[in-house]
Amino acid sequence: MAKTIGIFDSGLGGLTAAAEFEKLFNGKKYIYFGDTARVPYGTKSADTICRYACQDTKFLIDKGASLIIVACGTVSANAIDELKKRFDVPVIGVVEPAAEKAVEIAAAGNGRITVLGTSATVKSGAYERAINKIDPKIEVRSVACPMFVPLVENGYTEGEAAALFAREYLENSVSFGADAVILGCTHYPHLSGVIGEVLQGSALINSGKEAVVAAKKYLPAHMVSDGNGEFYVSDAPEAFSRLARVFMGREVADGVKCIDIESY
Amino acid sequence: MAKTIGIFDSGLGGLTAAAEFEKLFNGKKYIYFGDTARVPYGTKSADTICRYACQDTKFLIDKGASLIIVACGTVSANAIDELKKRFDVPVIGVVEPAAEKAVEIAAAGNGRITVLGTSATVKSGAYERAINKIDPKIEVRSVACPMFVPLVENGYTEGEAAALFAREYLENSVSFGADAVILGCTHYPHLSGVIGEVLQGSALINSGKEAVVAAKKYLPAHMVSDGNGEFYVSDAPEAFSRLARVFMGREVADGVKCIDIESY
Repeated sequence: MAKTIGIFDSGLGGLTAAAEFEKLFNGKKYIYFGDTARVPYGTKSADTICRYACQDTKFLIDKGASLIIVACGTVSANAIDELKKRFDVPVIGVVEPAAEKAVEIAAAGNGRITVLGTSATVKSGAYERAINKIDPKIEVRSVACPMFVPLVENGYTEGEAAALFAREYLENSVSFGADAVILGCTHYPHLSGVIGEVLQGSALINSGKEAVVAAKKYLPAHMVSDGNGEFYVSDAPEAFSRLARVFMGREVADGVKCIDIESY
Repeated sequence: MAKTIGIFDSGLGGLTAAAEFEKLFNGKKYIYFGDTARVPYGTKSADTICRYACQDTKFLIDKGASLIIVACGTVSANAIDELKKRFDVPVIGVVEPAAEKAVEIAAAGNGRITVLGTSATVKSGAYERAINKIDPKIEVRSVACPMFVPLVENGYTEGEAAALFAREYLENSVSFGADAVILGCTHYPHLSGVIGEVLQGSALINSGKEAVVAAKKYLPAHMVSDGNGEFYVSDAPEAFSRLARVFMGREVADGVKCIDIESY
């Protein structure tokens, strides 16, 4: 039976996961939805995030997705239980896969992990729970980096401003000496340069990538239908197509479609 | 007959207008709505902005507002004609009042105005049209400042980061020598310090304040019912109450209520 994977994010950050999907599931079909009319999620309440995530998931399932990758740190941290409860298809978020990878590294080192995320993600405590469920001895420090998403969305992935906020958010974490730093929001891999500059010597974990790796274990590539990526957004497609070049490192096909997510 | 004024914004920026309302309409009733579940508007398309603005206006009219102040530069620039066409009550945006004030200053000077706004506001060309409708000889230069809203929403109203982006966006406009600079987004008055530092010698126009002044001409204070401000948001009230202290310079009453704006 034909199988399609659905990937969604509040906006464009999840395209880092889509790019990983294209590498790991070469030539396989997937459907991407970016909720560009309501982005960002990371500053909003858990209730609102949960309501939006349910609409996003319902849309993808209606389009035929038989497995959902939540390529959004904020949704993964705040709404994954609700999504698993409410929908019949498997739902894979970024939290558990990134936590597993980080614990693997930290357990062989000093036993310390730093988590970077949006305000809503840090407030949820989801990464701490996931990490300590695997290994209660790991010390976890979480840092909210609320300016990172606007920096990336506006193209400031390097340079003075990006470096300034990286120092502001992360300098206090240098002495913690984490073995692994989880980039707990799918926008953050674009800031790897300035983050790595401050937190030298820590392995940076791309949470979106780890979610795709986990999805491949769950649904191996041979079980997924052949095809291309289909892209849907809730606001005008033009802005998405322009920024997708930055996020995926390639042109996205012309056919980005706009849908009314509030009706789902 | 009892009259109430409705004020709305994509989020918290419009509270600068609410603060002006409380000064100019001392002890008069108003209803404020901040669409905190879908903020920001300034990065979104004109169609989406228009759809959201209609829901916001309908909510305020349903609550009894007999005059609407659009305390949002992005909505004023992109959706005011649609709101005026669709609703029976008077709708006052920030564009015309701010343009009038700026022209008054520029006509007595070098005849030059700089407009600062969100990407959607600058793209609309609404300020240029409003200014040149009053005086076609005025030279207008518009600058999109997309990082200003996230800076303000995250409390960076002064310091290194605010100064860095002010220089980045405005340094090229210094030689233009504008008589007046329209702060075309209701978040921007909070950055007056760093903006004024770069654009020394230009008068800074607070567009939200000018909209309230215009509203008072339209509906004098004695025609507005006595009462207090009532505050509604579309996301959790807690974050709003916390930030309202920054934006209004005072505590907002406990009764901030959350409503489902998508149902309007």
